[in-house]
This record gives sequence, structure tokens and C-alpha cells, in this order.
Amino acid sequence: MIRLAVDAMGGDHAPIEMVKGVNLAIEKFDDIEIHLFGDENEINKYLTPSPRVKIFHTTHVLDMGVEDPIKELRSNPEYSMFKAIKHVKDGNADAVLTSGPTQGAVVGGTLILRRIKGMKRVAICPFIPDFEGRMRILLDSGANVEFRPEHLLDFAVVASIISKSYFKVENPKVGLVNIGAEPGKGRAEDIEAYELLKNNPQINFYGNVEPKEMLTSDVDVLVTDGFTGNILMKSYEGAVKAFSDAIKKEVYSSFKAKMGGLLMKNAFKNIKRKANPDVVGGAIIVGIEGILVKAHGSSDAFAFSNGIRLARELAKEDIMSKVRVAIEALHNE
Amino acid sequence: MIRLAVDAMGGDHAPIEMVKGVNLAIEKFDDIEIHLFGDENEINKYLTPSPRVKIFHTTHVLDMGVEDPIKELRSNPEYSMFKAIKHVKDGNADAVLTSGPTQGAVVGGTLILRRIKGMKRVAICPFIPDFEGRMRILLDSGANVEFRPEHLLDFAVVASIISKSYFKVENPKVGLVNIGAEPGKGRAEDIEAYELLKNNPQINFYGNVEPKEMLTSDVDVLVTDGFTGNILMKSYEGAVKAFSDAIKKEVYSSFKAKMGGLLMKNAFKNIKRKANPDVVGGAIIVGIEGILVKAHGSSDAFAFSNGIRLARELAKEDIMSKVRVAIEALHNE
Repeated sequence: MIRLAVDAMGGDHAPIEMVKGVNLAIEKFDDIEIHLFGDENEINKYLTPSPRVKIFHTTHVLDMGVEDPIKELRSNPEYSMFKAIKHVKDGNADAVLTSGPTQGAVVGGTLILRRIKGMKRVAICPFIPDFEGRMRILLDSGANVEFRPEHLLDFAVVASIISKSYFKVENPKVGLVNIGAEPGKGRAEDIEAYELLKNNPQINFYGNVEPKEMLTSDVDVLVTDGFTGNILMKSYEGAVKAFSDAIKKEVYSSFKAKMGGLLMKNAFKNIKRKANPDVVGGAIIVGIEGILVKAHGSSDAFAFSNGIRLARELAKEDIMSKVRVAIEALHNE
Repeated sequence: MIRLAVDAMGGDHAPIEMVKGVNLAIEKFDDIEIHLFGDENEINKYLTPSPRVKIFHTTHVLDMGVEDPIKELRSNPEYSMFKAIKHVKDGNADAVLTSGPTQGAVVGGTLILRRIKGMKRVAICPFIPDFEGRMRILLDSGANVEFRPEHLLDFAVVASIISKSYFKVENPKVGLVNIGAEPGKGRAEDIEAYELLKNNPQINFYGNVEPKEMLTSDVDVLVTDGFTGNILMKSYEGAVKAFSDAIKKEVYSSFKAKMGGLLMKNAFKNIKRKANPDVVGGAIIVGIEGILVKAHGSSDAFAFSNGIRLARELAKEDIMSKVRVAIEALHNE
């Protein structure tokens, strides 16, 4: 049985969507047991009782706009998110899932679970779907704003393991996000990272990848610093959103376009389905001693149940042991 | 009469599209005189003779993939692009336009025209159209990969002048590209730049702008370093391209969607027209002692003629004098 610690209170639609997501997951996967952290009364309103769900009552919820999660962690450890993370630390669960604030999850992961020996930085690692439904791993997407080239090598090694174990890619190609395809492009750190990635036997290095080729190039993993990764991801999301809004506006501007829009409804649905980040369920916080999945703050029950699936599969694949071995090998070379 | 130096040989479709663009512009604007740099025989194949067009024969073309433009500039100054830039330096033209390689234009601008006194960095400054046709100025979009906070202040001042003079925005709002909206977000340099921008009386500072809000927020100017600006712009372009391709693919996948696509043809055309970067004509290389417009490498005659229009209007507005005054005021504060 896989034991998953789940924060019922984090997220814009908590606890209702989180608990409904748990209901969905419990029905779907008979090999999981869920330890649900949050307000017992609230949880019981929506929970379908199951012998595989246990509630751990907590009194505090980490605000989605929390400014100083380190202070919160130190002053009051009764937060549902931190208690759930602690549950993994204490060996009572195999993985943890939260929809709470990202920086809270990064802080909780780093200070409670601690960094993996040898890794200097923690990274946020989302899966970016293209319009064909193919996933690419991007990291760091925002845990650290400052970086050193060797951090990107650590990230590349961990993400390659995730790609192999979770996406079953045999020899995942790693690309370095850069402003030009040729070697020698980018900042001093990028040029140094290029050499590190190229020369490391644990990595199948593809070379530089420009953001405009991100969704069409044949890479499985994209590494960069947290500032750049965040800019990349949010530019991409912003462009897709603006384009969608423009299409909707045009559709409503004429009868002909409205008819066209109706006929294209399924086509648009197909695109949305393939590129739907809710299918992923969440980003992995990598570099820490435990499996921590951060679901989107706006997750609904469907998205959250996919977050549970992701946490479950990472635990089943025993991803932590593989990561530990690889990082040790990397730093003993 | 406004005198424009034009590189006929730079660009993927040179010289044919460049010369045709000149033909269009000469017909459209009766207050311009064009000094065309390139292979005389080639140019004459496509040029509609006009007393307002003079050809300056050159022997060399800067390759679009040029690796070391500084070396090229030093070893052989007979390149059409560099000769056209030199023409401005010598006081024989009021502005220069090229579709040649961007780094060539940056190098030529910096080494031939020289930086404006007080400005430490040159920036590439494109206009980014949203889907409503509204333009926002983004800089730096790739001239420099390393930066200091004070460079962003210089950029903000220059871009504000362009916004006022060219787009007739009375009090242009300047946003700082960042990974969060709240003050205190980003790298050490961003946090410092935030304070500089906030406290400077020449700037109407809006605050941080996340890339996902870039196209909807009420800013006129977006400043960041060249690495981030380039990532932002190319992520945006890549996402729009991938989304468009996905729609096209879906349209061809079923009869119903094909009919829908036909009915929506005008709607898609409207969107494309509004968000068409060809309408802009080019990016401005700012920070140098002269007006240098870099048209897209893939420019056709229409786009290139808009580049001529942009160069013409910047010259008419006497943008250089305004920039000089503002930069001097900034550094004498």
C-alpha cells in the first residue's frame, strides 16, 4: 500500500476540491492510502468515507499570498501543509501533495525534508504539455533566482531520472534554455553550464534550445535558472491565454465567426485537452529528501486527483532512491 | 527632406524585398530621400527609378549567420550594412535601416555611431503587438546578456521618449519584467532596479509586470535585461506559433472543423492583422548616437516599407535630441 500525505486546506478551492479529488483518487487507485491534513469538520463535509483515508486534524492554513513562509514555519508548525510534509519526514507517508502556496512548499520541503546530500539547490519542476500532448520537463521554474552552472547539472540529472521513470523515455534528451542555438550563446553561467552538460556521461545533452523551439524540439528535459524558467513558463501561458481570448472575442463579433466557432468547438476542445496542465496534476519539488508534489493553486478535483496519481507513481517508481544514487555518482566523479 | 540610409542587401529575401519595400515607401512618403547601399546591378533589377533614390555601390554582404561581426567590421568595412551606418555617422543621412543580422547591427551601431554619452549599454527595442493591435515597447530584447540595475533606468528613460514621440502616449507607464507582481521579487538586480525606477522623476513607474500579464496590463514600456527580454519575446512567439499550428492541424482533421475554419477565416485574419509584427517594421537599436532600425531578417517588401516609415518618423520627431537631453538630465541629477 502506498501512503500519501495530502494537504486538504491549500489551494484556491480548498478544502472542497481537494477532498473531492481524494474521493476520485481513492476510487481509482486501490493501492493507495491517504492521510489527509486539515480541518476535520470541513473535510468530513465532502469526504466519501473510506477505510483508506485517515484525517489528521490541523488548525492553521498557510495563506496563498504568504509573504514569509520561513517565519510561518518557525512560529507555528500546525499548518496543514507543513504537517503533511513532516509526515513524510517521520516516515509515515511515501509522498506528499499540496495545492498551497509554491514558496511555502519550497520552504517546507527544504527545511523539513532537507536537501539531498550533494545537491546545492532545490528546483520547481513542472511538466509542460505541448499541443500534441507530449510533456517536457522544465526546471528550475522558480525556486531560485540566483544560480551556478553546476546547479543546472544537478537539475539535469534528476529530471532525466524523472523522464526515464515516469515518462518511460529511454535516453532523455536534455536541452539548455538559451537565446541562441549555437554553443557560446548566453550568459557566462550558461556557457559554463553548456560545457558541464556536454561533458557529463549521465546526461544525454541535446544542446541549446531557444524558447521558440521549446515546444517543437526533440528534447525531454529543459534546464535553466529559476528566474528564466519562470519567465519562460509564464510568457508561454500568457501568450496562449491572450491568443485564446482574441479568438473568443472574434467568435462573438460576427454571426459567421460564431457559426465557425460552433463547428470548431470539438477542434478547440481537442487542443485544450492535449495541452491541459490539469492532466499533469502538479510540479515536483526536486532536490529534497522526499517526494513533494505541488499541485496548481487553482486545482479542481480532477487536477488534484491527477496530483495524487503523480505522487503515487513517483513513490511506486521509488524515484528517491534512484535520485540519491545518481546525485552521489555525480558528485563522486 | 528626410534622408534615410538603407541596407539593400541584409535579410533573408534581399535585395528583392528590400528594394521593393523602398519602391513602396518612396511612393507613399514624398518627404523622404533614400540612399540605398548594395550591389548596384542587383538593386537596379528591382528598383523603380526615382530622383529620390540614390544607389551607393558596395561589394560585401554581412552573412545572416555572421559569428564575429566585430572582426568583420574591422577587417572589411565595405559591407552594405556598415557603409549605411557610416553614412549616418558622416552626417549624410538622418537614420538607417537594415534587415541584416541583429548582432551586426548592434556592433555596427555601437562601434560606428558610438554610444550616447552617459549610456553604458545599447539595447534592442522591439514593439510587441498584443491581439488588440496595441503596441508595447520591450527592451533590452537581446543586445546585452549581463546587466546592472542602472542600465534598466537608462532604457526606461529612452523608451519613454519613444513612447511619447512615436506612439503619442502622454505619460507612458514603465513596467519591470519580473517573476512576481509584489516589490521585492526577482534577482538582486531586479530589486535594485525597482527602487531606481520607482524613485526617478523622469519615469512613470508602474511596478513589476509578470510575463503572463504582459499583454493585458496597462503598461507602455517593459524593461529587463537582454537575456530575459529575448527569452520573453521568443517564448511568446513560440507559443503563438505552436497554438496556430495546432489549430491548423485540427482544422484539417475533420470536415466539420474545416467548415468551421472557413467560416472563421476572417476572424483569424483579423487577429493576425492586429498582432502582425510586420506592421511595426523593425526594432530600434537604442543607446547609440543615431537612429538605427533593425527590420526582421525575414522581412518582405511590406514589412520593410514599414521599417522605412518607422525610421522616417523617428527622424521627423528628432528623437535623438530628446534622448540626449533626457540622458544628460538623468546622469546629472
